[in-house]
Amino acid sequence: MAAALIAIDWGTTSARAYLLDAAGEVLDQRSGPLGIVKIQDGHFAEALQTLLGDWTSLQVPRLACGMIGSRQGWREAPYVSCPASFANLSRGVVVAGDGALSIVPGLITRDVRSIPDVLRGEETQILGAVGPDESVIAVLPGTHSKWARVARGVIVDFRTFMTGELYAVLLEHSILGRMAQPAGPSLASFDRGVQHGLADGSLPHDLFAARTLALTGELPPEEVAPWLSGLLIGREIRDAQVLFPPGPAIRIIGGNELQQRYQRAFILAGTTAETGAANAAAKGLWRIAQSLT
Amino acid sequence: MAAALIAIDWGTTSARAYLLDAAGEVLDQRSGPLGIVKIQDGHFAEALQTLLGDWTSLQVPRLACGMIGSRQGWREAPYVSCPASFANLSRGVVVAGDGALSIVPGLITRDVRSIPDVLRGEETQILGAVGPDESVIAVLPGTHSKWARVARGVIVDFRTFMTGELYAVLLEHSILGRMAQPAGPSLASFDRGVQHGLADGSLPHDLFAARTLALTGELPPEEVAPWLSGLLIGREIRDAQVLFPPGPAIRIIGGNELQQRYQRAFILAGTTAETGAANAAAKGLWRIAQSLT
Repeated sequence: MAAALIAIDWGTTSARAYLLDAAGEVLDQRSGPLGIVKIQDGHFAEALQTLLGDWTSLQVPRLACGMIGSRQGWREAPYVSCPASFANLSRGVVVAGDGALSIVPGLITRDVRSIPDVLRGEETQILGAVGPDESVIAVLPGTHSKWARVARGVIVDFRTFMTGELYAVLLEHSILGRMAQPAGPSLASFDRGVQHGLADGSLPHDLFAARTLALTGELPPEEVAPWLSGLLIGREIRDAQVLFPPGPAIRIIGGNELQQRYQRAFILAGTTAETGAANAAAKGLWRIAQSLT
Repeated sequence: MAAALIAIDWGTTSARAYLLDAAGEVLDQRSGPLGIVKIQDGHFAEALQTLLGDWTSLQVPRLACGMIGSRQGWREAPYVSCPASFANLSRGVVVAGDGALSIVPGLITRDVRSIPDVLRGEETQILGAVGPDESVIAVLPGTHSKWARVARGVIVDFRTFMTGELYAVLLEHSILGRMAQPAGPSLASFDRGVQHGLADGSLPHDLFAARTLALTGELPPEEVAPWLSGLLIGREIRDAQVLFPPGPAIRIIGGNELQQRYQRAFILAGTTAETGAANAAAKGLWRIAQSLT
């Protein structure tokens, strides 16, 4: 089938382009280390050409989501407020580079104390992974995990948890990493960390156990990292379940190893979680593109 | 008055020596970047000589506390279990370098789930800042803040909070630091952070507000650091007050700028906190030395 859309998930460190047919099926994909922080002096048009290669000459629409629409990106697509419908998002699409690329906006929400929270790119993944008639709690694990309440095509509200970034900076730059050795696939220590994270506690205190358990020999050096990962994921789930009371199905979006870890942690929390389909960003971009034409 | 004791607070990155008279008064002090991580190949005897200079020839006892007694130090002084009395600590003193230096042990405790917690050096500061007949909650702010319940000379229990280290690694290595600019003495933003930290919340989520408030222009770049400091100190106080129910007086030990920030945060938490005397480590070492002779 012929190409009908170029869909691009364009983030902070990398970019991935999908060639889709008129039914939204992925014909081909390409990626490169062309995230917005890698691009000097605003040379986004050149970066797009590098990413697309010979797709550049195809006469099809191009639609992107992610940090490419941030203030540091090609052109800012201002945040759309929650609750945000599919139509709200479509109306927020902006065009960059004299028509070279359309960009989906991110979302902003505020809690009861008016503290803002934002996301950019995940709105599209959610639209790709949650059907228009479905109501779910969408969980997108990552550097900044996002939890979103989705009701019949509307992203009602969401929250960010810095789980992945906490893990990375603590392991690399804090005392907790000093006794850690490269980790094997230790599910037992991960589970032990999750259990600790799911219990009531104070995170700035509980984190320190990654050191004290290692000091006393109760956690071997190669188990420190999986234990810490478990602790942080367990605490995210515990904290998020206060903000997103159980009821709707929980759907984990993002087809990677992290998705499996979260699924395992949800089981330990006594909850089941579905996993979303792969290529959620491409599917979401295709849906938005349909509404634009 | 003549010198009667050389007391050394010997930590991870630096060491400070005090010359004390027979009444425990500080006659003089010296310090150097001679912490245990700075000393190569176990040359602790040479480092001691460098630190002491012409005090080396004085015929007085030498007593140290801190990381010098850890496994990575000169000689390990094994942790003493809580509840730990003054006598327990004195009995745990070990001698390093053929009598060159006596070293006070650290403490270990376990919570209801048997998770260990440790400190080293703070036991001596507590003994120096809390009289033998006093009962207080001792708070020692720092990279790893320590809270300890002290009852009539006995350190009953304690907890570590990684507040200072979280602040440092997040500001230096995470996305939260990316929008931060060097901070002025912004008490208003610090207070705002404290209030946020004192409220119920999820730390991995609440931290992200240091970015979103900056993104939306609600927190100027030079206010990010004081706000984050306030958030973390406020959350420490909130979490610790669950573990250390109010009742005994709260005493903040450690005569520095951080002590004032904590005092301010305690006021915002509706609690008053006393401040301990300066040179708590020297006073504590002097008290322990008295019991050894």
